[in-house]
Amino acid sequence: MKAIRVGLMQMDSQDQKERNMRRASELLEEAVSRGATLVGLPEYFNFIGEENQESEQAETIPGPTTTQMAEWARKHHIWLHGGSLLERVDGRDKLFNTTVVFSPDGKIVSRYRKIHLFDVDVMGGPAVQESTIREPGDQIVVCPTPVGTIGLSICYDLRFCEVYRILALKGAQVVFVPSMFADLTGRDHWEPLLKARAIENQFFVLAPAQIGKKPLYSCYGHSIIVDPWGTVLAQAPDGETSLLADLDLEKIEVIRKQIPCLKNRRPSAYRWP
Amino acid sequence: MKAIRVGLMQMDSQDQKERNMRRASELLEEAVSRGATLVGLPEYFNFIGEENQESEQAETIPGPTTTQMAEWARKHHIWLHGGSLLERVDGRDKLFNTTVVFSPDGKIVSRYRKIHLFDVDVMGGPAVQESTIREPGDQIVVCPTPVGTIGLSICYDLRFCEVYRILALKGAQVVFVPSMFADLTGRDHWEPLLKARAIENQFFVLAPAQIGKKPLYSCYGHSIIVDPWGTVLAQAPDGETSLLADLDLEKIEVIRKQIPCLKNRRPSAYRWP
Repeated sequence: MKAIRVGLMQMDSQDQKERNMRRASELLEEAVSRGATLVGLPEYFNFIGEENQESEQAETIPGPTTTQMAEWARKHHIWLHGGSLLERVDGRDKLFNTTVVFSPDGKIVSRYRKIHLFDVDVMGGPAVQESTIREPGDQIVVCPTPVGTIGLSICYDLRFCEVYRILALKGAQVVFVPSMFADLTGRDHWEPLLKARAIENQFFVLAPAQIGKKPLYSCYGHSIIVDPWGTVLAQAPDGETSLLADLDLEKIEVIRKQIPCLKNRRPSAYRWP
Repeated sequence: MKAIRVGLMQMDSQDQKERNMRRASELLEEAVSRGATLVGLPEYFNFIGEENQESEQAETIPGPTTTQMAEWARKHHIWLHGGSLLERVDGRDKLFNTTVVFSPDGKIVSRYRKIHLFDVDVMGGPAVQESTIREPGDQIVVCPTPVGTIGLSICYDLRFCEVYRILALKGAQVVFVPSMFADLTGRDHWEPLLKARAIENQFFVLAPAQIGKKPLYSCYGHSIIVDPWGTVLAQAPDGETSLLADLDLEKIEVIRKQIPCLKNRRPSAYRWP
């Protein structure tokens, strides 16, 4: 069995960056002490505050936060999926919502900028227009590693089946969905969408999430690890915590042999309007 | 409120065509007597038998079964979604798995041939190679009607998110998934996939299913009606039954305004491998 032990951090990040970094480090140490070798943080793990604080808190990559993360990866000799952070790029007005992945020697091996910006207005909640302050990425990214091919996505991307299908076709085996999913939508949409992404693409889905009240809305939490059959291997209770599971990557091929739906696709019939 | 009352037939069709047609007619009458104006049958509602019986039981369209269905639609003045039946086409060796939709005056208004053939080999169950005896369709079909735009799909198509996304982009509001889903996969995959199709595309999903033991496998049943938020409006118990719900089509626009994920798609970023 080619199993890897993964650890997901569920966090209640707020506008104190130092505190968030300390908590991330503590939760990560806990996961590592329990044997995790691939560790994932949630969306915006290092800072969630008011909109007017964001450009000051955004960082270049590399920058202080990623330097610290590289240190964590090196110290614990782990593959570290960095959830996401606000990325500032010199000469650009808007910020990116960016994932960085580190190898166990502390090198940045992949970077993904969120493609789908969260422009919604759910009844009973405030309007959110991420695109007024963010610039979207336009690359769907997989990150091949010795522990499996990692697929990258962030939060609202979850509603776009195209991203996950393309990740599967590019060879993703373990797909991260670091999130700050809203309570109002999460209670009805979080689990069915995450399960469906795992079932239809027959890969592992790992979703480390924010919990708690943020300036714009309350978060749903429920960080989850789903296997390629759609079985929930682990789900987090409320509160900041690290969530562990062992992923047997061989399960992917066993299931794809039984139900070869990736092979049974009929692209010639998909005439996209 | 622009509501339509729909009725789905859950059936235990076997190899006695006359019996299946009588049961379909009875269940349909029951749904109509409770006010259904759009009625859907399950996959292969008129015949499920051994493989060697199939070519004899297949029919041309129009043919005896569709003539009877046209009569039902006319008699009850309903829109009738005909689940699916084995279609024989002169000059072709293989059969199609075909849906036919009838208007209340008994006219055939749409036809859909299943695109994704069920070629699987699930552990604990027998191997099924639908493609050895079936020919696949290659057209994704919507059917505009005064009661809403109907999207067509059949059973195994459910695993292919592309079909449902394209149906949504073509304007589908009410999507049928007539099925003969296996028990072994249905218990883990049926509900999350159907819910996800509704949530990600923000349309109604109607899945009339077969129950009972068939020559190749036992069926999961659990016919279901899901609204565009992913809420289950109705789900069938075991047994042959008609399942009703009122669909408020205005809900589609309300939800799409709140979470405009169809508008927020980024086709330029989807570089299909």
